[in-house]
Amino acid sequence: MIKAGIIGSTGYAGQELVRLLMQHKDAEIVWYGSRSYIDQKYYDVFHNMFEIVDDKCLDDNIEELAEKADVVFTATPQGLCSSLVSEDVLSKTKIIDLSADFRIKDVNRYEEWYRLKHQSPEFIKEAVYGLCEINREDIKKARLIANPGCYPTCSTLSIYPMAKEGLIDMNSIIIDAKSGTSGAGRGAKVNNLYCEVNENIKAYGVATHRHTPEIEDQLSYASGEKVVLNFTPHLVPMNRGILVTAYANLKKEVSYEEIKEIYDSYYKEEKFVRVLEKDVCPETRWVEGSNYVDVNFKIDQRTGRIIMMGAMDNLVKGAAGQAVQNMNLMFGLDEAEGLELVPMFP
Amino acid sequence: MIKAGIIGSTGYAGQELVRLLMQHKDAEIVWYGSRSYIDQKYYDVFHNMFEIVDDKCLDDNIEELAEKADVVFTATPQGLCSSLVSEDVLSKTKIIDLSADFRIKDVNRYEEWYRLKHQSPEFIKEAVYGLCEINREDIKKARLIANPGCYPTCSTLSIYPMAKEGLIDMNSIIIDAKSGTSGAGRGAKVNNLYCEVNENIKAYGVATHRHTPEIEDQLSYASGEKVVLNFTPHLVPMNRGILVTAYANLKKEVSYEEIKEIYDSYYKEEKFVRVLEKDVCPETRWVEGSNYVDVNFKIDQRTGRIIMMGAMDNLVKGAAGQAVQNMNLMFGLDEAEGLELVPMFP
Amino acid sequence: MIKAGIIGSTGYAGQELVRLLMQHKDAEIVWYGSRSYIDQKYYDVFHNMFEIVDDKCLDDNIEELAEKADVVFTATPQGLCSSLVSEDVLSKTKIIDLSADFRIKDVNRYEEWYRLKHQSPEFIKEAVYGLCEINREDIKKARLIANPGCYPTCSTLSIYPMAKEGLIDMNSIIIDAKSGTSGAGRGAKVNNLYCEVNENIKAYGVATHRHTPEIEDQLSYASGEKVVLNFTPHLVPMNRGILVTAYANLKKEVSYEEIKEIYDSYYKEEKFVRVLEKDVCPETRWVEGSNYVDVNFKIDQRTGRIIMMGAMDNLVKGAAGQAVQNMNLMFGLDEAEGLELVPMFP
Amino acid sequence: MIKAGIIGSTGYAGQELVRLLMQHKDAEIVWYGSRSYIDQKYYDVFHNMFEIVDDKCLDDNIEELAEKADVVFTATPQGLCSSLVSEDVLSKTKIIDLSADFRIKDVNRYEEWYRLKHQSPEFIKEAVYGLCEINREDIKKARLIANPGCYPTCSTLSIYPMAKEGLIDMNSIIIDAKSGTSGAGRGAKVNNLYCEVNENIKAYGVATHRHTPEIEDQLSYASGEKVVLNFTPHLVPMNRGILVTAYANLKKEVSYEEIKEIYDSYYKEEKFVRVLEKDVCPETRWVEGSNYVDVNFKIDQRTGRIIMMGAMDNLVKGAAGQAVQNMNLMFGLDEAEGLELVPMFP
Repeated sequence: MIKAGIIGSTGYAGQELVRLLMQHKDAEIVWYGSRSYIDQKYYDVFHNMFEIVDDKCLDDNIEELAEKADVVFTATPQGLCSSLVSEDVLSKTKIIDLSADFRIKDVNRYEEWYRLKHQSPEFIKEAVYGLCEINREDIKKARLIANPGCYPTCSTLSIYPMAKEGLIDMNSIIIDAKSGTSGAGRGAKVNNLYCEVNENIKAYGVATHRHTPEIEDQLSYASGEKVVLNFTPHLVPMNRGILVTAYANLKKEVSYEEIKEIYDSYYKEEKFVRVLEKDVCPETRWVEGSNYVDVNFKIDQRTGRIIMMGAMDNLVKGAAGQAVQNMNLMFGLDEAEGLELVPMFP
Repeated sequence: MIKAGIIGSTGYAGQELVRLLMQHKDAEIVWYGSRSYIDQKYYDVFHNMFEIVDDKCLDDNIEELAEKADVVFTATPQGLCSSLVSEDVLSKTKIIDLSADFRIKDVNRYEEWYRLKHQSPEFIKEAVYGLCEINREDIKKARLIANPGCYPTCSTLSIYPMAKEGLIDMNSIIIDAKSGTSGAGRGAKVNNLYCEVNENIKAYGVATHRHTPEIEDQLSYASGEKVVLNFTPHLVPMNRGILVTAYANLKKEVSYEEIKEIYDSYYKEEKFVRVLEKDVCPETRWVEGSNYVDVNFKIDQRTGRIIMMGAMDNLVKGAAGQAVQNMNLMFGLDEAEGLELVPMFP
Repeated sequence: MIKAGIIGSTGYAGQELVRLLMQHKDAEIVWYGSRSYIDQKYYDVFHNMFEIVDDKCLDDNIEELAEKADVVFTATPQGLCSSLVSEDVLSKTKIIDLSADFRIKDVNRYEEWYRLKHQSPEFIKEAVYGLCEINREDIKKARLIANPGCYPTCSTLSIYPMAKEGLIDMNSIIIDAKSGTSGAGRGAKVNNLYCEVNENIKAYGVATHRHTPEIEDQLSYASGEKVVLNFTPHLVPMNRGILVTAYANLKKEVSYEEIKEIYDSYYKEEKFVRVLEKDVCPETRWVEGSNYVDVNFKIDQRTGRIIMMGAMDNLVKGAAGQAVQNMNLMFGLDEAEGLELVPMFP
Repeated sequence: MIKAGIIGSTGYAGQELVRLLMQHKDAEIVWYGSRSYIDQKYYDVFHNMFEIVDDKCLDDNIEELAEKADVVFTATPQGLCSSLVSEDVLSKTKIIDLSADFRIKDVNRYEEWYRLKHQSPEFIKEAVYGLCEINREDIKKARLIANPGCYPTCSTLSIYPMAKEGLIDMNSIIIDAKSGTSGAGRGAKVNNLYCEVNENIKAYGVATHRHTPEIEDQLSYASGEKVVLNFTPHLVPMNRGILVTAYANLKKEVSYEEIKEIYDSYYKEEKFVRVLEKDVCPETRWVEGSNYVDVNFKIDQRTGRIIMMGAMDNLVKGAAGQAVQNMNLMFGLDEAEGLELVPMFP
């Protein structure tokens, strides 16, 4: 039985981790960390957990946690995980960081986009970027995982085969993404009130969103070229789900069948990536509550572009589900354990 | 392995059955019945099932089905199940009927409220009303289950302890219920279009809704008195969930503690009924995707009334989940098998 | 041109007042009061007002305001208006208070339900309860208006004819009400975040909601009896709208036609109350953005009860619209001026 | 008083026309056309109109209509208006066509994208494209107006200044658009049911949507170059609103101030186009119910692109509001008459 601790268990991603781990047969939660709700019953914060979780919320004492837990999930704002990690801690427990602290390999780039001083740059090199479909073997051996961001997971998996195969102009990429509101977190802000989000759609962080360098890095690794791209996220009035619509210029004329074969070759062995059938567009409703990413593409011969699309649940594959997938890999379990969730509709 | 057939698998309740049975370790689906989509891939109707279900939809041939299936779920409009059932069929397979055909013991009452001629009144007596918490022992031995309606399940479980204990005036009961839109089914009707339901709340079927006699019957059995009550359902702009707010006059002054003790005594052994803590109101968000019914009550000393409240997921405990719970009981499995679902929030 | 000042102009009700007054041909706003946003452009708080309102938000200086404004609207939490009102102020300007400070005639009752010490009980007697359809003549002569609460407006107008005519048992009234989320205000609270309200319905303030005594008082005045009733509000995932479903025992058998005639006789001259046709239930979508209250009723002969229903926009007839209607009456204008708004659908 | 007839008055756009014309002081509706609801009271189809519109729905007899009406609005599917128009009709009445029949000047292009045979190509040349801000003078003299599509209105106004000034590479344009569900019409289709649209976002018509050639044409006229672009619409779970996020390569380096000055120069006299302040993104909530289009842009120096954004209400400026604006121009009225609507929030 893997003993898991969660720092930041009372945010939306933290709570989703609890949901998934409660249904995981080889893991149990030994620490419900939450600065805001110390000593309160966890089910008082999330009443869905009544009669399921009886524990109280604890402070984030990393030393004690490292002793008790085989793995620690940090589902906290940026800057916290990097302040906790140390050789001592990593010698005792594994860490899966759901924040951005270890996702960007170039510390200057991290500090520039996040406007934070990195607290432990010496661990950046060791950290493995936990996009399981791409870095599976490294993840198995890792002590410290940088669990990918929600937008980067969906964007990278949607574009990866085209980038890797060198079929698109890497400087032509435009990613227009749409997210449900759970991605904005559980903080009490006027802009996230029901009446402000409902019956509205807006872009935000235009040309400045922090997931931009993360996506650029991953696509650079894939293509072997330095990638600069546009990424524009939008806030959608729904709880869960991310949809990515990405555009790029094709380097040469290719047929639907050729591209389909490529996507299939990358993903047919991947349980959690579903390449849809021709002309079926990914939709967030079909992946809700599950760890799937649905991808597809459309060639526009008139403009010579390809439109690559992906849909997933931002709290599962975009956060807690992928974290559990990483845990499974790190502990030698079946990668899908606890994640065989049929999407819930409607 | 229990072989299950579903007639009406392409409605919302039918699809939820598929979701639950796909995650059930002792059952498999052998028949995806659907008159509207015969010969189409099931995943073409519900894309969430892509790469999960590869079967095609079939016609509802009950003879063939009875041969192949150990249990048949009928998730269809009223009138269909009663036209299919026969001694021959029941000698070969068990039936769990999610429609109303066998819920009302008095056939005249059924025909009056449903404005339908009952097709097989000779089986009404045998049919067991599948409210597991109340009729558990009979269900275990049943061949034919009348799976309770969504509103009646939530209403009955909310009021049952008070009715059974004789603490309320049974002629004073008023049930004001609210349901998500999946309860209205997947038929293409203008009134169920997104723009008609969104940003709206309305009552419907006022004083005439067909779940009224079903609730009255159950509360009559509980109290030993003939019950006539008001039941008013409302349509709420959300996908899933039923909330019941029920009012009744207390026969005498009682304390919170006395009533709490009664509710606890009825439900503390019941896995799927959660009696909430004092002053915590049931909310549909805390049960979504799960088989739980959350119940609680409030005594209003000013008026001498008690307000009894219940929340559940109409597609799970209100339909498919309770059907699986019945199946588990009928086949001697752990009652909770395949139903240990942590509610999904948000 | 009536000069209007608004204290609390940056709440939802305050902003709705701005919307309505901007479209009113005989009024202009001279003061946008807001403690939270002093010196900020009003359109920075509500971008819908960009290029429409160019003013900045001001502090709530009642002396200065009283000099400048012919009428002051207070759209603030309870306790503020009563601390501002004085003989001096009322000698210079009229006040329409959208809070509860002057709605309850018995100051002890106010203080008990609101748990506040009333700051100016000497003005309670003078204040006129601004339910225009009922107190029209008094409103015309008033200096100080207690603008009714949203739930009490809808509840009272739905039940009033039955109460006034003595046709229902006044001790049997149960009001089950449902409101959109704008009624919860614009404060930054976790419970009002999008993801908490969306896909959820819940009761709140069960047996303790502060609008209870207000409704009881109004129905007591109508019936001449002391009324004690149950009032249960629910929070619905939509922006605007209140639906009231009220139940009462009929004192004797009456026909649909008799009751219809009574409702018509009370409301046929009332522009803003629409008595719907037989069997048409009020729905909030049909009144959104307008000052209408749609009412109807259904007799349930089985139980001897009548179900009375009402729907309105909580921010218009339930707050700002009724406030403007009161202003029109107080200043001798056409009562409907600025309020001839066709409901916006969808 | 302008006498207006509406063919297709029972769709969402038709009903919005009714709402706007009811509040227009120089127009009255003399014909509520609706094939689906002939002889039914208009308020039975849209209960918001109860006690506001007492007329019945009529068949679409164009001869009779042409005699009675000074202007006929056709808010119908493509193909109908072109089958009704004739020299005789146009000699008696003006036509404002909300369908696409007369928007595309090249009849082959129309027939190819719409897969319809055009019924009256001889009137295409005469028809004026009713984008008021661009074709104002021609509109004033027109007999036949092709009222622009919703997406084209928002897209064109967002991009127009950049195209006209030759600042962007016209072959690099990518338009990613998002629409509320009223744009999908009131037809009873499973895909538009509440439970299918709610909690979902999807792209549709990728690379094939019929508004593509319309946008291309307008931007071609603006730039003097033949434009081919990508247009991808998405369906958002909300009733009203369109958001356009458009991307293009800048031909040379330009500053925020330069571009701002250009947008201001095009739109500062335009009542219904609001150029937002720096870094304020257009959001649909701020224009709901009004005729405004909010536009803004962001320069991304890293990629050398400009992101142009626009938000409007698809049923107002995207359909009925623009139609009324056209009517005002054609009849010599103040262009804003009946359209001075403050956006309704929340």
